[in-house]
Amino acid sequence: MVDYKMFELGDFVLQCGKTLRDAKLAYKTYGTLNDAKDNVIVYPTWYSGQHYENEWLIGEGKALDPAKYFIIIPNMFGNGLSTSPSNTPAPWNGPRFPNVTAYDNVKAQHKLVTELFGIETIKLVTGWSMGGLQTYHWGAMYPDMVKRILPFQGSAKCSRHNYVFLEGAKAALQADAAYDYGWYKEPPTRGLRAFGRVYAGWGLSQTFYRVEGDIKHMGYASLEDFLVGFWEGLFYTRDANNLLCMLWTWQNGDISNNEMYGGDLPKALGAIKAKAILMPASTDLYFPPEDNEIEAGHMPNAELRVIDTYWGHFAGGPGTSPDDIEVLDAALKELLAS
Amino acid sequence: MVDYKMFELGDFVLQCGKTLRDAKLAYKTYGTLNDAKDNVIVYPTWYSGQHYENEWLIGEGKALDPAKYFIIIPNMFGNGLSTSPSNTPAPWNGPRFPNVTAYDNVKAQHKLVTELFGIETIKLVTGWSMGGLQTYHWGAMYPDMVKRILPFQGSAKCSRHNYVFLEGAKAALQADAAYDYGWYKEPPTRGLRAFGRVYAGWGLSQTFYRVEGDIKHMGYASLEDFLVGFWEGLFYTRDANNLLCMLWTWQNGDISNNEMYGGDLPKALGAIKAKAILMPASTDLYFPPEDNEIEAGHMPNAELRVIDTYWGHFAGGPGTSPDDIEVLDAALKELLAS
Repeated sequence: MVDYKMFELGDFVLQCGKTLRDAKLAYKTYGTLNDAKDNVIVYPTWYSGQHYENEWLIGEGKALDPAKYFIIIPNMFGNGLSTSPSNTPAPWNGPRFPNVTAYDNVKAQHKLVTELFGIETIKLVTGWSMGGLQTYHWGAMYPDMVKRILPFQGSAKCSRHNYVFLEGAKAALQADAAYDYGWYKEPPTRGLRAFGRVYAGWGLSQTFYRVEGDIKHMGYASLEDFLVGFWEGLFYTRDANNLLCMLWTWQNGDISNNEMYGGDLPKALGAIKAKAILMPASTDLYFPPEDNEIEAGHMPNAELRVIDTYWGHFAGGPGTSPDDIEVLDAALKELLAS
Repeated sequence: MVDYKMFELGDFVLQCGKTLRDAKLAYKTYGTLNDAKDNVIVYPTWYSGQHYENEWLIGEGKALDPAKYFIIIPNMFGNGLSTSPSNTPAPWNGPRFPNVTAYDNVKAQHKLVTELFGIETIKLVTGWSMGGLQTYHWGAMYPDMVKRILPFQGSAKCSRHNYVFLEGAKAALQADAAYDYGWYKEPPTRGLRAFGRVYAGWGLSQTFYRVEGDIKHMGYASLEDFLVGFWEGLFYTRDANNLLCMLWTWQNGDISNNEMYGGDLPKALGAIKAKAILMPASTDLYFPPEDNEIEAGHMPNAELRVIDTYWGHFAGGPGTSPDDIEVLDAALKELLAS
């Protein structure tokens, strides 16, 4: 029961100078492309997530309404559906899979949007977390094509602290000798579970845990029930090399790290013509509002709008926090109507 | 060149119902006990730290001046000097070492202070982080004896979020099969280094990393230089079972979890007669100011005084942040003079 399609990219040369042979982009669309081809929303995936894990924001009466818009969810390279360490044949399989940047991802997505659908203008790009990173890339790489962006709990460049958090999670995974430098025959489950437990402290805020959101909002019976059921559960079934591939993409995310901007981040931010609402969460531990505030200062057409919440990074998470989703959905509607 | 002494506790029964046989408390004193025995400061150690790693706050002209005060630093159980998994003979060695609470630690310290030195009144108890946890315990367990407390970047009870952060670090260590459930013959260095890398994101704030405090203030050449040199360096030489012993102590820290208070935290906080200044750091990621603010609301004689800093938990760390130490030292002087 495959609910997505594959776009053939052919041999796709990456920023790192290696080639993804027979590269494929898995994608799903919602709604109908109108004749003017001007009702397009692109909605990239988050770290480790697949398209169906983005669907909570789409629906009748919501901002992302398939009755009005043609919504495209492209799966990120490395997420197990698009070309990934886990589905690439030797010699480029597993730990030999090349480093892929967010720039590479968005370049591939642009080919999908333009070559397959003949789309020339995009009404909105939006996404959560690493989906937000890709959203900024869309704005900076295709400033004339992208009219609006709303990255939520994401950033244009991975901050040094965010990088360090990810190093911790990575080290936990790789501490498991079963990982075997990526040559595992069986999943390194101890390391994957440790990865999830490290993530647990970062994904939600101090206040979330203090008020027992895990029990009161998310339906777990105890803290340990939550740590195993939610956090170990989120990662232990994912492929370790895939996780590390996307982690590299995240750590090296930077809209200016390309020939267009030559590492000049203010220049890249300044080139984004799209009308933008940047929506960090007040208590996000790895995308703190300050990072977006600094970005907004360099963007000609951006508004910083902080979501006041104790859900931390998961304010815009996959359907977990109804109050925050309401705020997000209203902002998306406002931006789309403007 | 041993610079500390050992206090013999004999057979010391713990809260968990097990006995530390021939238990020993390693301690060091600074200055001279006066005839009235009323110039005493107790200054417990932090997580994994040993007495000499507390000394940065002691010195001529500082609040903790050995010319005026008799300062006692008791080493925490499990820190490798006092009775610990690493120095206890079988059958209670390594992973069989019993669970020790902060209550147990402070009870043992109280024996040292009263039985060895005949001290009946304590002018001040102060400590950083887990030293702060022990400080609160002193105030709640011996309310008539302790006149002043100044816990910095600590709390009276381990918060649920703090517990989760520690679970992540623990899982990283234990993901290393070389740990072998505590029966390692060689140190599980991969796990210990992962432990340090997980810690790296927590110990300092997002802003600290954004402004490159690792390079500008701490003298490292790059982020990776800091991650290996400082964070892996901080933990890879420590004994894994010792680290896990103290981690349990931390996670289960709670001044009310004893017969005196029966789990009633507001009651235990309310029983602290000492004049108190609670000094969290504004950007501490695992002891956020809110936790101390809630505590202060239950304490009859406490002032909340937040240190405004981007050093996070390391605001009061072992000598790393001169500006914050100045603020801390001034508060200690003020409290001692009151």
